[in-house]
Amino acid sequence: MYFASDNTAGIAPAIRDALVAASDGFALGYGNDDLTRALERRLSEFFEREVTMFLVATGTAANALAIAQLAPPWGVVLCHAESHIMTDECGAPEFFGGGLKLIGLPGEGCKIAPDVLEAAIARHSGHRPHLANAAVVSLTQASEAGTIYRNDEIARLTDIAHAHGLAAHMDGARFANALARMNATPAEVTWKAGVDVLSFGATKSGAMAAEAVIMFDSARADGLAERRKRGGHLFSKHRFLAAQFTAFLADDCWLKLARHANAMADRLAAGLSAAGIAPVWPVEANLVFVKLPRAIDARLRAAGAQYYVRHSDSLPAGLGIAADEMLVRLVCSFATTVDDVERFTKLVQAC
Amino acid sequence: MYFASDNTAGIAPAIRDALVAASDGFALGYGNDDLTRALERRLSEFFEREVTMFLVATGTAANALAIAQLAPPWGVVLCHAESHIMTDECGAPEFFGGGLKLIGLPGEGCKIAPDVLEAAIARHSGHRPHLANAAVVSLTQASEAGTIYRNDEIARLTDIAHAHGLAAHMDGARFANALARMNATPAEVTWKAGVDVLSFGATKSGAMAAEAVIMFDSARADGLAERRKRGGHLFSKHRFLAAQFTAFLADDCWLKLARHANAMADRLAAGLSAAGIAPVWPVEANLVFVKLPRAIDARLRAAGAQYYVRHSDSLPAGLGIAADEMLVRLVCSFATTVDDVERFTKLVQAC
Amino acid sequence: MYFASDNTAGIAPAIRDALVAASDGFALGYGNDDLTRALERRLSEFFEREVTMFLVATGTAANALAIAQLAPPWGVVLCHAESHIMTDECGAPEFFGGGLKLIGLPGEGCKIAPDVLEAAIARHSGHRPHLANAAVVSLTQASEAGTIYRNDEIARLTDIAHAHGLAAHMDGARFANALARMNATPAEVTWKAGVDVLSFGATKSGAMAAEAVIMFDSARADGLAERRKRGGHLFSKHRFLAAQFTAFLADDCWLKLARHANAMADRLAAGLSAAGIAPVWPVEANLVFVKLPRAIDARLRAAGAQYYVRHSDSLPAGLGIAADEMLVRLVCSFATTVDDVERFTKLVQAC
Amino acid sequence: MYFASDNTAGIAPAIRDALVAASDGFALGYGNDDLTRALERRLSEFFEREVTMFLVATGTAANALAIAQLAPPWGVVLCHAESHIMTDECGAPEFFGGGLKLIGLPGEGCKIAPDVLEAAIARHSGHRPHLANAAVVSLTQASEAGTIYRNDEIARLTDIAHAHGLAAHMDGARFANALARMNATPAEVTWKAGVDVLSFGATKSGAMAAEAVIMFDSARADGLAERRKRGGHLFSKHRFLAAQFTAFLADDCWLKLARHANAMADRLAAGLSAAGIAPVWPVEANLVFVKLPRAIDARLRAAGAQYYVRHSDSLPAGLGIAADEMLVRLVCSFATTVDDVERFTKLVQAC
Repeated sequence: MYFASDNTAGIAPAIRDALVAASDGFALGYGNDDLTRALERRLSEFFEREVTMFLVATGTAANALAIAQLAPPWGVVLCHAESHIMTDECGAPEFFGGGLKLIGLPGEGCKIAPDVLEAAIARHSGHRPHLANAAVVSLTQASEAGTIYRNDEIARLTDIAHAHGLAAHMDGARFANALARMNATPAEVTWKAGVDVLSFGATKSGAMAAEAVIMFDSARADGLAERRKRGGHLFSKHRFLAAQFTAFLADDCWLKLARHANAMADRLAAGLSAAGIAPVWPVEANLVFVKLPRAIDARLRAAGAQYYVRHSDSLPAGLGIAADEMLVRLVCSFATTVDDVERFTKLVQAC
Repeated sequence: MYFASDNTAGIAPAIRDALVAASDGFALGYGNDDLTRALERRLSEFFEREVTMFLVATGTAANALAIAQLAPPWGVVLCHAESHIMTDECGAPEFFGGGLKLIGLPGEGCKIAPDVLEAAIARHSGHRPHLANAAVVSLTQASEAGTIYRNDEIARLTDIAHAHGLAAHMDGARFANALARMNATPAEVTWKAGVDVLSFGATKSGAMAAEAVIMFDSARADGLAERRKRGGHLFSKHRFLAAQFTAFLADDCWLKLARHANAMADRLAAGLSAAGIAPVWPVEANLVFVKLPRAIDARLRAAGAQYYVRHSDSLPAGLGIAADEMLVRLVCSFATTVDDVERFTKLVQAC
Repeated sequence: MYFASDNTAGIAPAIRDALVAASDGFALGYGNDDLTRALERRLSEFFEREVTMFLVATGTAANALAIAQLAPPWGVVLCHAESHIMTDECGAPEFFGGGLKLIGLPGEGCKIAPDVLEAAIARHSGHRPHLANAAVVSLTQASEAGTIYRNDEIARLTDIAHAHGLAAHMDGARFANALARMNATPAEVTWKAGVDVLSFGATKSGAMAAEAVIMFDSARADGLAERRKRGGHLFSKHRFLAAQFTAFLADDCWLKLARHANAMADRLAAGLSAAGIAPVWPVEANLVFVKLPRAIDARLRAAGAQYYVRHSDSLPAGLGIAADEMLVRLVCSFATTVDDVERFTKLVQAC
Repeated sequence: MYFASDNTAGIAPAIRDALVAASDGFALGYGNDDLTRALERRLSEFFEREVTMFLVATGTAANALAIAQLAPPWGVVLCHAESHIMTDECGAPEFFGGGLKLIGLPGEGCKIAPDVLEAAIARHSGHRPHLANAAVVSLTQASEAGTIYRNDEIARLTDIAHAHGLAAHMDGARFANALARMNATPAEVTWKAGVDVLSFGATKSGAMAAEAVIMFDSARADGLAERRKRGGHLFSKHRFLAAQFTAFLADDCWLKLARHANAMADRLAAGLSAAGIAPVWPVEANLVFVKLPRAIDARLRAAGAQYYVRHSDSLPAGLGIAADEMLVRLVCSFATTVDDVERFTKLVQAC
């Protein structure tokens, strides 16, 4: 029963096969290969716009490079207080960004509300050069709580950002999971809603290690090639990054993988709800958060279930974690089996 | 006829198969998996000493992390003027090292001579805090010229370094190729010869993307986990880095791959010498450098041969490149075929 | 009526005269002069302990150098959300600290409470290497609200810090003002209360531009000379920094200057209180914060009074700023005249 | 006999008096004062062009800020191998520049020759993003050898730079000394000769601590205010930087001070030449370099003479330092006395 993270899964078969196939023959390094060139065209098609892409192997690299590209070293990046860039990247954005500043904002379900963003921008503007000024807002789609921003919510936030001269970044480590839920195209969820740069993740969704920084405005990409190289993120055998992403986008592979993960999360949520343990946040991607009585936790652990306990300040108002409870995160992936979900929910229901 | 780089080859079959095999099942991320743990033990065995390893996907990352760990931001790293860290990493060591300084030293065959090192240390010592002081010497094994340092040469250089308080780093992007040539154990070529930290590369030797920073003194590893993470170099699906390196070390895989690459280089050198075009430096790894008449170059290009023209200030004394010649680098890899070598040399001989 | 800042004053006469006197003759640069050497001995005497000092010209430099020395680039610095390092130094600590992270804590009167510190450390500890871990707590004495930490409060906070492996920094831009209020020696307020490093400011207190980083544990000073130099903060004509600080410490100059500034603040507070406008925080240094009706503000401005409007989230519980009011900061200095205070309070009383 | 450095002198009387005078009354901090505003106008007049100025206290700060403003973190700064930024600033340009790269060029008399610059640019261009590309050339006027670039020499070098997209920086720590020698206006020596940014030093020329970054193209100044602030280089009592520079420029003060220093150097050179010890480089500013027999050195030291021994690779061809000799740098300043010069030369002549 593997619910610790979507990165505990292996490589989705189609992507794995593409890696193997890409290994045949010779290809120039550093992105000067046919697979890479074709992928950039494919991504432009996918997003219905000429994009510039930069492939890297980790989400932290994608986020840090994207943010460093958008904000000056004396800029402030506004993000949710529990976002990955704030709490799980050991200061990568600060490092790549030359010492910029992340300010974490509160928000239920790990989402930033428009008025909170407005106030934060006001707070971090003016008084130059003493005050580091807001330069970027970073939204996580799907969020760390497994919730998603709707198109109009994204547009509202990016409008506010742009009105004050900020750029809008989207951390899409689980972009496929979000997109699979939404009745919208990749374009609508991103640049049409005002997103300037997307960290488009394939790793959590089924790749081995493949993430793309997608610049919707190629004019802003100047210098990013150098940033990536000096960050140590330019693969010599670059075709293997391209091969993963190409397979991920081919034949709706990304959609099928994400739909499976999401469906497993739904099933898990339904099973737990049936046992009286409803998700604390709406299950809108592949994450299920529940308050688990410690006794049930003990039984699950004993049966070999893997998952992490979390702390959050973003719970719905009025919802608290009692002393005999814990907030638990359950993550489904393309590899999650119905069996695992069933075993898990039955164990809970039996308690 | 693919001689542009060893990174134009794909993945060696044994490593590719290991990647596929590693994809089965679930494994905790970020190095908390069995494959990773076993690999660290295996590397300690390989080097006959308890080592601490940090896996990353690129050689630039390995070098930059290693150097940043050894030198303070106000330190000087002494390296060959044509070394990869000096000319091909777009300032990665400076970036990871917080603005440290690389000083390139001259040296025939891209090797640093002891007296040159002594003089450079003297030049970059004292007068603190005005003068950035020498903190690290970085040796490339095999060198960019395809030459190698013998054990006693390494020991001589690291002795000088240590006597003045410098640490010794070895850039081993082609470590396997060098080792395959030497009548010595991995231990003898590294820590027994005074190397403090090794960037041990598998990518050029046959992996997809796998490099290990090997700390021979684990006490010096403090903080490196954080550096790697904030550099964006900690893989979530870490098992796939471990799987590559494990297969690389298993059953003398590394040795077989390196021997093939080296043998192809030897064959190429012999064929070219027979045509009156002798290598400008001794062929001690998998690289062959020759002065090629432009007419021959044109014929080779027309026939589809791939290789790069280089400039070097490290040629043997008295050897110059005439106006109708070019210095050409030919790189062999595990994937280089006898056919390609034969076709290439025949084309040259026919001129 | 100059209440905008203590840095709008000129140079205190004794310090100015010392600058002039120091200009005679020749002296070796970069701190290799007699004045500098004598000052280090004097400071050791002043603090009753062998200290290592690093003179610079600005408080931002002193704070940033001190913090960079105490925290690794992947460390978190816990400070008050409205502290100078958080809001007025344009990211200097992040820049000097190689991309470290500042986390602002709430606290009435711009002071950090022990339980808030405990919770923050808990929140920013563990989960390495993903989470940037707390490494330093920075206390401002006197605070931006003009309040001061008592010795036992400092000791309580530094105890918590040390128990969790954090170092304790004190931003003493207004250290003299605080000290002049306290019934305590310089030693008691600093290292005896657990402070590891002090930014000891003389500029706001009457110097032209002179601040000292005081390392109470000289063993931690390694590399700070290089940090200062490469930060551009090592004066060539260093004697002029030393001369200012020497005069500041001589004949209780610092105490007299600070007492005057504090007394003026007291007088101002008393006058305003008499007019029904009581300070929002206790006046414990040279700063007076009041809620001013906008009508009075207009009259004061018309009469030429200078001061800044502030926003604060650190007001006492229950105290709000109404729409027709503003929170106003009035700063006194060694140069503030009784006349100015009287004119100002009379203008307010007349409203 | 004080010839160690021009920074061993105190403050020139006119500047010292201006500091004292500026201390009267109150003035807003951080450059929002009348003196500062007037100075910017005065500098625009001085340079016959609208300039943007940023005052700081040290030459290292001025150079590092200027260079960081001109080059990206992945840029290369070409400078003389013995320039101050290369050997005496402990990596300040690299630190402020986010890890950029300095490449030291050879050149007699510490001057860069056009063909050397051309070759260096060629060497550090292209092959992106692997190779850090040349972005800035930095010229030192007067040079560390006390030589100066003529207008046409500067124009030739900046033409080469601009033709390849590099910016041109001038380190003018001894700009006044150079200018005083040249039959040219400040405009002719700088922007009219293609200099984009000047570090205009007053400290060595007679100020206490005052340097100005002069941006001849104000459009390139964006962000420099933030860089200065986060570098800790924005003085709160900014008027004291402005006061020094204002006095320095008033009534040809700078010219008188520089002419005196230069004249003393000439006299020293003449006296030494008369004793058979001719300067190794032409004396074109306030520095005299001579080969001194060790016996004479001993006698001078015994008599209390202060000066530094130097090493240089920039000596005129054929000129070597024998085992019983040393290369000695003698620096004159506004405060150097005829008496000191006479005593010194007599001691040499007596040997």
